[in-house]
Amino acid sequence: MRTTVGIVGGGPAGLLLARMLHLAGVDCVVLESRDRAYVEHRQRAGMLEQGTVDALRACGAGARLDAEGLEHHGIELRFERERHHIDFPALAGRTVTIYAQTEIVKDLVALQLAEGPPLLFEAEAVAIEGADGGAPVVRFRHEGRERTLRCDWVAGCDGFHGISRAAVPAALGRAYEHEFPYSWLGILADVAPSCEELIYARGENGFALHSMRSPSVSRLYLQVPNGTDVADWPDERIWDELAARFATDDDWVLERGPVTAKSVTPMRSYVHEPMRYGRLLLAGDAAHIVPPTGAKGLNLAVSDIRLLAPALIEVHRTGSTALLDTYSERSQERVWQATRFSYDMTKMLHAQPNGDAFDRRMQLTRLRRIVASRSAAAELAVHYTGLPLAV
Amino acid sequence: MRTTVGIVGGGPAGLLLARMLHLAGVDCVVLESRDRAYVEHRQRAGMLEQGTVDALRACGAGARLDAEGLEHHGIELRFERERHHIDFPALAGRTVTIYAQTEIVKDLVALQLAEGPPLLFEAEAVAIEGADGGAPVVRFRHEGRERTLRCDWVAGCDGFHGISRAAVPAALGRAYEHEFPYSWLGILADVAPSCEELIYARGENGFALHSMRSPSVSRLYLQVPNGTDVADWPDERIWDELAARFATDDDWVLERGPVTAKSVTPMRSYVHEPMRYGRLLLAGDAAHIVPPTGAKGLNLAVSDIRLLAPALIEVHRTGSTALLDTYSERSQERVWQATRFSYDMTKMLHAQPNGDAFDRRMQLTRLRRIVASRSAAAELAVHYTGLPLAV
Repeated sequence: MRTTVGIVGGGPAGLLLARMLHLAGVDCVVLESRDRAYVEHRQRAGMLEQGTVDALRACGAGARLDAEGLEHHGIELRFERERHHIDFPALAGRTVTIYAQTEIVKDLVALQLAEGPPLLFEAEAVAIEGADGGAPVVRFRHEGRERTLRCDWVAGCDGFHGISRAAVPAALGRAYEHEFPYSWLGILADVAPSCEELIYARGENGFALHSMRSPSVSRLYLQVPNGTDVADWPDERIWDELAARFATDDDWVLERGPVTAKSVTPMRSYVHEPMRYGRLLLAGDAAHIVPPTGAKGLNLAVSDIRLLAPALIEVHRTGSTALLDTYSERSQERVWQATRFSYDMTKMLHAQPNGDAFDRRMQLTRLRRIVASRSAAAELAVHYTGLPLAV
Repeated sequence: MRTTVGIVGGGPAGLLLARMLHLAGVDCVVLESRDRAYVEHRQRAGMLEQGTVDALRACGAGARLDAEGLEHHGIELRFERERHHIDFPALAGRTVTIYAQTEIVKDLVALQLAEGPPLLFEAEAVAIEGADGGAPVVRFRHEGRERTLRCDWVAGCDGFHGISRAAVPAALGRAYEHEFPYSWLGILADVAPSCEELIYARGENGFALHSMRSPSVSRLYLQVPNGTDVADWPDERIWDELAARFATDDDWVLERGPVTAKSVTPMRSYVHEPMRYGRLLLAGDAAHIVPPTGAKGLNLAVSDIRLLAPALIEVHRTGSTALLDTYSERSQERVWQATRFSYDMTKMLHAQPNGDAFDRRMQLTRLRRIVASRSAAAELAVHYTGLPLAV
């Protein structure tokens, strides 16, 4: 097989890149190691920045998003049993939209299968060769055979555990990493959300987040120790702990319902530099991971693609690599700002296992400042709703 | 001896309180354990918030401050060999004034010795008794004798190592503390400052601060490990290290001159709650300590007094303790915000002995955000120039 851009990974980053290239007349092929049902159902993020929504609309993937997405005008910070609204339009001039990553993937998969370019499921990339030369090759397994995808450029969109990042020689790359001493226990529940907007709660026992997937499906998270076994958390225990962490002094009530999914996710900050090695370009989780507090992961992947697609299109149209040559640098400043924001949100809201009374008071002092000061609240709001592409 | 308010400690807090009470006709006595020369010459802070300047002017201690103080419109942040100006009037609508604490003490001592109330030097308070009853007593040594000061209220303004805080029973007080794993080596030098405004520099080897006392005297600081012996730092080594940390890619030059004082100061955050125990009121360093990054120590002491003096005057005039009853709470929120600001400035600018590459990039990411974003810069500017009395 031969194409212009070989895209490794059929998550939101790879699918959006394929769609944008396709619309600009640039040939590409997407290799996805899993089957269609898997990628369309793995639970991930669900909060879209305005720029993410705009990018999906611009490539024709906005119809269901516009019909079913929930526009949110803010979030609630909850601490010391009190509720505080952060008003995004007033502070940042933008809103956010709740629409699950699984739905974005379904929309992009449907478009690509209908209109092209080729999207191969159960096509497992095993090696990227020649990225430092003029003719890179992706070797992959598909339908029981070893196959070869020859291309001008390779886009590594295969996530944190993919093979793309490993194709950058260790001596030329650098990894920055921070592991957090806690995880999130996440559930999906068939119950109407108990809130209209997301609630970020700092309970005395730890963090909790109330989110939603639709008007009838709630998504909730609970800070738990690393290594937590979901078997130790029967539904009743989860609801009790959520209720305790969200407890207020007013008459707010957490509605309970049947739990349909349950999983534990560790939390990590990770940034790989650079995001380009010769003809290999990294995007999304393949290059960087943030803890989910602040909902930046999916949005960072999309903003990488919003910088990468025009750069590849420019090469195709004019032969100039000017945009591509600065892709890594331009993307990375934004990545670091989102990494910092996610890190600070995480540290501010989670019970720190090694924290002392001073640390706990500092958390409350930070939260009190945000709800008391317009400039502090604005800093949260502009990061949460998404920095501009050029930071 | 008998008075209305017994003031333990003749630093800026105690002296300003005495002056404000005196002008309102409330009797008081100041007990200072050291001699006049000592208190007038111990090197301390030198950056005054607008509210501090206003308080000194309002009590008649502003003449020399207005003549000799240097009004600053911002600070410079220096990192990665580049210079960035933070514009206080544009971001916070306020300026700051450089005028040394020693000069404030001289002005207030001169006023008090000329106009009263009594100010006793070498009067060492040894015990505060009966603060939980109706008639507190301060026992002190003066001119070789044990003496007694009977009063209605005791103001503990005797600093971090004073006796006042210890008079609060352990079961009723709570201390919050954080020690930083580095100190400041500070020098005074007879040389014109190499800058018009303060420079906060994050060098690769650590933090450095360029400040000044007057147009002909520079005050400079260097981050050093805890336990550093000044004997290991001959003048030439200090200047070389300062020059390296302040180095830029333009033609900026650090001017050198004779070093006239040299000392090492550890860095600590400390907050004691509450600031009131019965008839004992704590103010300034007796209740809280911040690391010097951000120059909040003296200004916090003054803002404590700006809250405490009116409260004591109200008791005198009307018998109502309404203001006094909320003094601790009102002061403490401001104290915590300044503690947080000082902590964040310190962590952002100092080399962290246990920091890794991720931590270093996060420091730079924070600094880059401040110089790129109006809301982030505004948060720095409003804290640096001083939050309003009611936070």
